[in-house]
Amino acid sequence: MTQNIAILGASGYTGAELVRLIATHPAMRIRALSGDRKAGMAMGEVFPHLGHLDLPALTRIEDIDFSHIDLAFCALPHATSQAVIDALPRDLKVVDLSADFRLRDPAEYEKWYGKPHAAVELQKEAVYGLTEFYRDDIRAARLCAGTGCNAATGQYAVRPLIGAGVIDLDHIILDLKNGVSGAGRSLKENLLHAELSGGTHPYSAGGTHRHLGEFDQEFSKVAGRPVRVVFTPHLAPFNRGILATVYVRGDAQAVHQALQARYALEPFLDVLPFGQLPSTRSVAGSNFVKLGVVGDRVPGVATVVCALDNLCKGSSGQAIQNANLMLGIEETAGLMLAPVFP
Amino acid sequence: MTQNIAILGASGYTGAELVRLIATHPAMRIRALSGDRKAGMAMGEVFPHLGHLDLPALTRIEDIDFSHIDLAFCALPHATSQAVIDALPRDLKVVDLSADFRLRDPAEYEKWYGKPHAAVELQKEAVYGLTEFYRDDIRAARLCAGTGCNAATGQYAVRPLIGAGVIDLDHIILDLKNGVSGAGRSLKENLLHAELSGGTHPYSAGGTHRHLGEFDQEFSKVAGRPVRVVFTPHLAPFNRGILATVYVRGDAQAVHQALQARYALEPFLDVLPFGQLPSTRSVAGSNFVKLGVVGDRVPGVATVVCALDNLCKGSSGQAIQNANLMLGIEETAGLMLAPVFP
Amino acid sequence: MTQNIAILGASGYTGAELVRLIATHPAMRIRALSGDRKAGMAMGEVFPHLGHLDLPALTRIEDIDFSHIDLAFCALPHATSQAVIDALPRDLKVVDLSADFRLRDPAEYEKWYGKPHAAVELQKEAVYGLTEFYRDDIRAARLCAGTGCNAATGQYAVRPLIGAGVIDLDHIILDLKNGVSGAGRSLKENLLHAELSGGTHPYSAGGTHRHLGEFDQEFSKVAGRPVRVVFTPHLAPFNRGILATVYVRGDAQAVHQALQARYALEPFLDVLPFGQLPSTRSVAGSNFVKLGVVGDRVPGVATVVCALDNLCKGSSGQAIQNANLMLGIEETAGLMLAPVFP
Amino acid sequence: MTQNIAILGASGYTGAELVRLIATHPAMRIRALSGDRKAGMAMGEVFPHLGHLDLPALTRIEDIDFSHIDLAFCALPHATSQAVIDALPRDLKVVDLSADFRLRDPAEYEKWYGKPHAAVELQKEAVYGLTEFYRDDIRAARLCAGTGCNAATGQYAVRPLIGAGVIDLDHIILDLKNGVSGAGRSLKENLLHAELSGGTHPYSAGGTHRHLGEFDQEFSKVAGRPVRVVFTPHLAPFNRGILATVYVRGDAQAVHQALQARYALEPFLDVLPFGQLPSTRSVAGSNFVKLGVVGDRVPGVATVVCALDNLCKGSSGQAIQNANLMLGIEETAGLMLAPVFP
Repeated sequence: MTQNIAILGASGYTGAELVRLIATHPAMRIRALSGDRKAGMAMGEVFPHLGHLDLPALTRIEDIDFSHIDLAFCALPHATSQAVIDALPRDLKVVDLSADFRLRDPAEYEKWYGKPHAAVELQKEAVYGLTEFYRDDIRAARLCAGTGCNAATGQYAVRPLIGAGVIDLDHIILDLKNGVSGAGRSLKENLLHAELSGGTHPYSAGGTHRHLGEFDQEFSKVAGRPVRVVFTPHLAPFNRGILATVYVRGDAQAVHQALQARYALEPFLDVLPFGQLPSTRSVAGSNFVKLGVVGDRVPGVATVVCALDNLCKGSSGQAIQNANLMLGIEETAGLMLAPVFP
Repeated sequence: MTQNIAILGASGYTGAELVRLIATHPAMRIRALSGDRKAGMAMGEVFPHLGHLDLPALTRIEDIDFSHIDLAFCALPHATSQAVIDALPRDLKVVDLSADFRLRDPAEYEKWYGKPHAAVELQKEAVYGLTEFYRDDIRAARLCAGTGCNAATGQYAVRPLIGAGVIDLDHIILDLKNGVSGAGRSLKENLLHAELSGGTHPYSAGGTHRHLGEFDQEFSKVAGRPVRVVFTPHLAPFNRGILATVYVRGDAQAVHQALQARYALEPFLDVLPFGQLPSTRSVAGSNFVKLGVVGDRVPGVATVVCALDNLCKGSSGQAIQNANLMLGIEETAGLMLAPVFP
Repeated sequence: MTQNIAILGASGYTGAELVRLIATHPAMRIRALSGDRKAGMAMGEVFPHLGHLDLPALTRIEDIDFSHIDLAFCALPHATSQAVIDALPRDLKVVDLSADFRLRDPAEYEKWYGKPHAAVELQKEAVYGLTEFYRDDIRAARLCAGTGCNAATGQYAVRPLIGAGVIDLDHIILDLKNGVSGAGRSLKENLLHAELSGGTHPYSAGGTHRHLGEFDQEFSKVAGRPVRVVFTPHLAPFNRGILATVYVRGDAQAVHQALQARYALEPFLDVLPFGQLPSTRSVAGSNFVKLGVVGDRVPGVATVVCALDNLCKGSSGQAIQNANLMLGIEETAGLMLAPVFP
Repeated sequence: MTQNIAILGASGYTGAELVRLIATHPAMRIRALSGDRKAGMAMGEVFPHLGHLDLPALTRIEDIDFSHIDLAFCALPHATSQAVIDALPRDLKVVDLSADFRLRDPAEYEKWYGKPHAAVELQKEAVYGLTEFYRDDIRAARLCAGTGCNAATGQYAVRPLIGAGVIDLDHIILDLKNGVSGAGRSLKENLLHAELSGGTHPYSAGGTHRHLGEFDQEFSKVAGRPVRVVFTPHLAPFNRGILATVYVRGDAQAVHQALQARYALEPFLDVLPFGQLPSTRSVAGSNFVKLGVVGDRVPGVATVVCALDNLCKGSSGQAIQNANLMLGIEETAGLMLAPVFP
């Protein structure tokens, strides 16, 4: 049975990625698209690569009749999302791609996002959308909060290691290399091709990146004690992909085994043979995640590398995977598209 | 009914693109993959982005049992292909992606490729694979010759204009901007990232590019008289896509109408409104083609721009479209994947 | 003797390129830098790659004491420049990099730039800054108008051919491939890395690009009759460089000889041997221009390719070359930096 | 007085970079260029961007008359270099850019490079070329061994911290992001534009990269005890630049002060204000190094970031700086070229 879908905030990259994926999804049909500043435009005007699809025009959210909608994806900016979802019908299933419902503790939300949460009741209801670790909760959820793309990448690498008790919780360093689409379609000088294409630089260093709120919440929960990781993202000149290089203290073979054991049955997670490390190029355009582990010549040090596509598995693909669960559709439906290379 | 597919020469980019597309094709299954120098390797070793697929290992061609195969794609280098196909069972359907069977006149083949054709009888049998113009022939064909990627791009822009008699046949200039994947996975110094990424240059200028053989053959056939176009390709630092900027003499509105009329019913060809021109970014990763026409301030001059993905619609997507026809499958099956952007 | 230099509008790419070049210029010293919106900032904050230089802070133009200045470069936006220069001391030497003083006919200016010129008297005084063709006028000029970067590239390819009478004036087509820095440091969606890096597209097609005003003016002047060329620029994903592929009707050898004869003594122009064509990569970062000619298999058709760095020879390098002339410095001073490759 | 220079192995990227820099060097003149496989070719054929220079043709080494040469740069491949230098006149000053003379202990050399050293006596004589730390030795040296480009980047970040005793020697992690030119002009599949441009990947992980030999040697020497760092380089799609993100345990302010104190008088090293981190784009094309330090929210953790141009300060620029010292030329001569951005 085809499910009727609305996408709120369809004029950004994650909105476009949702449309791209749903275009060949066997059980979803897009019935409404919103984009306030671009209301009235066809999606093909906003994103010419989607011009071949038969899609509703962009409207304002208040003009959408949600009575026909089975599930809404909310790809709106942070802080906007909570007000919009608060105003939606309370029986409407929602997958939110913003940061608004990721942090369960309102104080943590306020600490990282700089103002009090405006929909605390909804926040309590929301399920954290890291599919492989909250699958049953998501299946039963009405409101699912998509993870940060960095937060997903880092958690795939580290979470099973904490769970298995194979690493030192006080020496976890995540060095991320991020493709530029993660910054969205925003007009910032440092995102211009001329500025960006010739090199790389770190940003939000020193423990200031907001996705640390998710790492803190999730890693501490798994560990049963506070865990504070060191995390530095870097912007590099490619469009899709995050590569997390994670330095841990523990036995490298045990680390590898913990990942293999945890992901053996997961359809989208691939742990490479011990000693092999992945490239982002092997997952770009897809919902797949690749992980590798290598032991260091320094005894007791292991390096874990995790690669995923930030727009797909890191946000929109994850969102569809969660929506599949919430709608009783096969979890992998519409998501088996192979990566695009070169 | 699922058709059993072999891909000969699966270790190059067009081979990998065939595998990518067939991975989500509803009616094809890959039963054999060859790659002589990489025989024995798994496809995931040769192309890690395809590592999630359940595929046969690469073998040598002589080790394939073709009795189970419904259709073979032949993605081998030019000149190699003719000998290999000549040795295949004569009742096996074949879609060849090389240049070996594109030119009907053996003298033309020898002129452009520098040696006599080694399988002249097969050459006679082959149907030229520009789907939209040879659809019925392809449906009935046993051996289909995929077009050159530049040849496809230029023909989509020009062929209907010759057919409609709306342009001056003696003033056709095709200036192409080509992504680098068209050059294949070959180890050439000028294809290195360090060499290529910082700029652009023309190549095979002055009427020396081999795809001119196809332009000559096809345009002259449509015109009923010899037509010789000027054609210069340029290598630019992106991976997928060809943009053909075609300068013609004729009435721009008539040019636009000729394209619109010709492609109105075509599932993969999109003629933009008059005055709009496409980008390669709107088709990358897909089987779609976008065309635009603009009139010049110089009276009687029109510019036609055509964009497609050289690996997909320009070779492997086209090949699958033709195979669909040859196998009695829905023509668009497996090919409606949306472009990937950004 | 060291000349004291002011740069007005130093916060854009052409301003930064002036600073880069003057940094190692033997006879110029930067005494003032303006950047209205960034007044008060150090140049190293606006452009970190210039942070090692001992430079004055950015100020507002009205705060500059021009009595100490020998020559001002004006790298302000179009339309702003004319008002600013109009208010400068009338004995101050000025090299303008904007479009404001390129067109001698006020009606042409208004046609291409959409409003009447606000400093018509200055416009009369200005000398067109295509150094190799206006050298003596520039030497004697007080106000020199830098050319458009596309206009320079196209003129280097075509101007000697018109002068030598070796091509058909009614069949000149210029197809340009442009690096992205030519669009400046402006916050436009289509200049974002994510938007731009994956492909190419034409812009300002159909005879609408403003640099056509310069082509019309200069080519018609040389020809002694109106000349209207066809010109289409394309944006491609590299930072520096313009490649002009020019299709002309004429004898290719005569075309080559006309270029060789004209540029034999020019220090920055290099005509490659007949049949060789240049790449933008061979000139990026430098003031050099490379030209090549190839004959086509279609008799009477020649292709001329011209490559230069739009930020250097196409604007800021040209500006310094002209300033050298105006200040009585060796013409090549500070400009012999080798291209940077890779 | 102009010094006569020979460059052995001029057909690779470091050779070309030497030529680029010497082109505007006030006191060096290139008298001989070797390139065995390209002997007889002009440098402009091998590197068109150097075609404007008046250079000797490439020859074979044995055809060079070294009696006129004041200093030879040896930019040959590892292992080749030691045999070539062994055969040169013993009074000829030599700056070697290969790895052959970097490691003082022959056993270490054999461990990292897989075979015994063939010129052990020369190895003893060689001075390690990290200019800022071996300046006096280099000034007196006949044979100077250029550092690895990664080794230079990492040492600039870490060496003063060990010297000042402000970090824990057992918790030093270097995560490097490397531009592709560091891999040279070699025909490797993973260096093709189509392979490389779309993402990033680690290589030589787990403590296997040969530059660890230099880190071990130098850091242990400064510390007076064995130091073993964790080091992982990553290949990213830009041409020039290395960014080292170094995670250390120590007081961040003390770390910053140690760097500032050490580099206060260095002409090429720039320590940014505390809390600011550099980009490779600010140094590309130049001999400058930029360093930044930020404290982490995790107490006692500091992040140091170092950026330089691998071809320039990481190899050829460093080589010229050392040659300047060896020849009694001003140390910065020819090396003050500003970075090229964008």
